[in-house]
Amino acid sequence: MDAAFVLYEQMTALDLVGPYEMLAANPEITPHFVAERHGPVRADSGLQFNATATFNELPRPDLIVVPGSSHWRSILESSDALVAWLAAAHPTATWTTSVCTGATLLAKAGILNGRPATTHWLAREVLADLGADARVERVIIDGDVVTAAGVSAGLDMGLTLVAELFDDDRAKLIQLVTEYDPQPPFDTGSPEKAPAVLVDLARQFDQSV
Amino acid sequence: MDAAFVLYEQMTALDLVGPYEMLAANPEITPHFVAERHGPVRADSGLQFNATATFNELPRPDLIVVPGSSHWRSILESSDALVAWLAAAHPTATWTTSVCTGATLLAKAGILNGRPATTHWLAREVLADLGADARVERVIIDGDVVTAAGVSAGLDMGLTLVAELFDDDRAKLIQLVTEYDPQPPFDTGSPEKAPAVLVDLARQFDQSV
Repeated sequence: MDAAFVLYEQMTALDLVGPYEMLAANPEITPHFVAERHGPVRADSGLQFNATATFNELPRPDLIVVPGSSHWRSILESSDALVAWLAAAHPTATWTTSVCTGATLLAKAGILNGRPATTHWLAREVLADLGADARVERVIIDGDVVTAAGVSAGLDMGLTLVAELFDDDRAKLIQLVTEYDPQPPFDTGSPEKAPAVLVDLARQFDQSV
Repeated sequence: MDAAFVLYEQMTALDLVGPYEMLAANPEITPHFVAERHGPVRADSGLQFNATATFNELPRPDLIVVPGSSHWRSILESSDALVAWLAAAHPTATWTTSVCTGATLLAKAGILNGRPATTHWLAREVLADLGADARVERVIIDGDVVTAAGVSAGLDMGLTLVAELFDDDRAKLIQLVTEYDPQPPFDTGSPEKAPAVLVDLARQFDQSV
């Protein structure tokens, strides 16, 4: 099974590496790291990945994973090559998935029209404007499309997908090996749980990027 | 503040990217991605990073993050350059940290002698053999050394460190922005919680790598 992990400039690294770690450990999956061009791709906090395939070189992957970005508003305007590839590759893919604001790119490619989908909480309204039935959930499976909420939700999506692709025991084994027994030191991981002053700060930051 | 995110062949990507995502988003932190050589470094499930500095080019970072690997037993034997750099860089660093089996590299560098430390559950006995006071905890802060349990524990360590470096509100903001409100689909993230048959499978896999 060919998995396309999509890379683009200013993407958020953890959006991709969460599901990658859960999925690519399975020997049945052949991971590809696709971008417009071969070579270095810089994430939004400086980490550099290396693309090993171009979009043209991988037209029919079985599984697609699209990460989001803190620069998602501008990327939505400047990602024509990625969006065109998504629109062309989705019909033959078994699973098309996104983490965080990656859902806005799926929506722009026409993949989420009227479908229930989730995204980073800061992008929910724009996702609805782009035609999706935007919902407040961690992971949504709708037919062959799976979307996850912001950044770290990709870990939960990755395990959910492993259970769909193989079985529950495989996902439980991957969870054990990645020691995914989360113990966050605080409990502010959603706008419903965080103090309003922090929610406002996050909104201001998002508008300033 | 110069942060050294250590890269090496066959490392586990999420070990590094978890704390990176929590730490490098802070404007006070300048991230560096250090390895023996500049250029591509391949993680254990195929993802390639790009090293932007050599160990020689970054002798005195303020913060060091060392990831683990599924190939940790052989890496412990073949990582002399990394271990020598760690031993030399640790005395002037404000924080020296590890995720997963990265703790065994800290121990080999003489940094964990008699100190309480945690690691991937599969590496606990070896960590004790290397001189650490190996404990069953998610994140341990002992003076200027912070260790985390396996793979995904790096997210919890990253947030814990942000609170230490700045304050609780900063960590809470990062948790909100990364939407770290974990909802794993199963509850098998530790050997105490997983079925014995899966714990045995994980042990067999670890011994076979």
